[in-house]
Amino acid sequence: MSNFGFSEMHLVNPYEVAFREARSAVKAHKVLEDAREHPTLAEAVAGCELVVGTTSIGHRALEHPLRRLEYGGKIIARKLAKGPVALLFGSEKFGLSNEDLSHCHWLLRIPTREGHASMNLGQAVAVCLYEIIRNPAAAKAKPEARRAANATDLERITELLEEVLEQAGYVQERSEGSTRLKIRRLVRRLDLDAHDAEVWLGMLRQIRWKLLS
Amino acid sequence: MSNFGFSEMHLVNPYEVAFREARSAVKAHKVLEDAREHPTLAEAVAGCELVVGTTSIGHRALEHPLRRLEYGGKIIARKLAKGPVALLFGSEKFGLSNEDLSHCHWLLRIPTREGHASMNLGQAVAVCLYEIIRNPAAAKAKPEARRAANATDLERITELLEEVLEQAGYVQERSEGSTRLKIRRLVRRLDLDAHDAEVWLGMLRQIRWKLLS
Repeated sequence: MSNFGFSEMHLVNPYEVAFREARSAVKAHKVLEDAREHPTLAEAVAGCELVVGTTSIGHRALEHPLRRLEYGGKIIARKLAKGPVALLFGSEKFGLSNEDLSHCHWLLRIPTREGHASMNLGQAVAVCLYEIIRNPAAAKAKPEARRAANATDLERITELLEEVLEQAGYVQERSEGSTRLKIRRLVRRLDLDAHDAEVWLGMLRQIRWKLLS
Repeated sequence: MSNFGFSEMHLVNPYEVAFREARSAVKAHKVLEDAREHPTLAEAVAGCELVVGTTSIGHRALEHPLRRLEYGGKIIARKLAKGPVALLFGSEKFGLSNEDLSHCHWLLRIPTREGHASMNLGQAVAVCLYEIIRNPAAAKAKPEARRAANATDLERITELLEEVLEQAGYVQERSEGSTRLKIRRLVRRLDLDAHDAEVWLGMLRQIRWKLLS
């Protein structure tokens, strides 16, 4: 919850021993300290404009619309911009009861594989909250710190590499046109960035110097 | 891993006590049983066509291209269709070392909030694997089991509700056109499905019968 910026934890009838002994991660203590206990689910979700239950639908016949997380998560994210939303998780052993589910507008399912649908509670919470905050636009908008090597650098590398290979006896004579083309294509396929191109140039110059000395 | 259909776990220098005592979830025992130990990271990733490291970039100066999970996960999913990919996770305390990272083609970052970037290992793995297998097309393609109520049903409900409200003294006279319109709009906003419409009709008929008897 803390990793993804969610702060309001509400508990209904928690297993007291586990809850009292629960220890938070270093930077997550506030979530646990501020967690509130409620005698009933109705009180826990009071004020929420959307109540969504999670289920692994092992056995239970569903009386609710069921949405996969990829789709349902988007609906929750949009709704969260306008008002409070409750996302319910049941106990690891039994999940949410039919009574619990009757408080829900609809249900959410994490797309786990058929043979192993039921998830660890902490992992299920992390996956759901990640889907809600995930932001492909932001992931793409962030320009990669990488600047590609330009053609001048690549051609310098090509020339140096050819010279080194000639000195080393790997290619026979410089005038052989097809070798030059092969090396040029080879260098282009490296997809070098500008900084790495400088490093390669330095290495090749040093090798050439050594070969000639 | 088991939840999302990943079966190959490779370990490098695991903390023996924790590893030997690790217990898998009921349906995940095969992942743990088949886990292989390697003396070095190079041996663990041998044969992989893409090696991606995970990082919370707290302090470390990055020498690698860094991709957010929403974007990097897609690249991994595409690559996985063609050949083996290694996704590396470091220890919870220290993460991957610079030595480990030097084996990677690029790095992946889960978009956690700035104030609390470092994640629980199991949750980080679950979130990354979920992103790799998530499939918005499948989530949408699956038709919701829901069939919306048709206009005939909605109009029957409107009429019955109006009649009941009249009998109950909530509205004055049936002829009042604006009331009919209000009720009609109210019923349409319920966004009923076909099955629920039947249930509402039954309830309203019963109420009308009681009011008239």
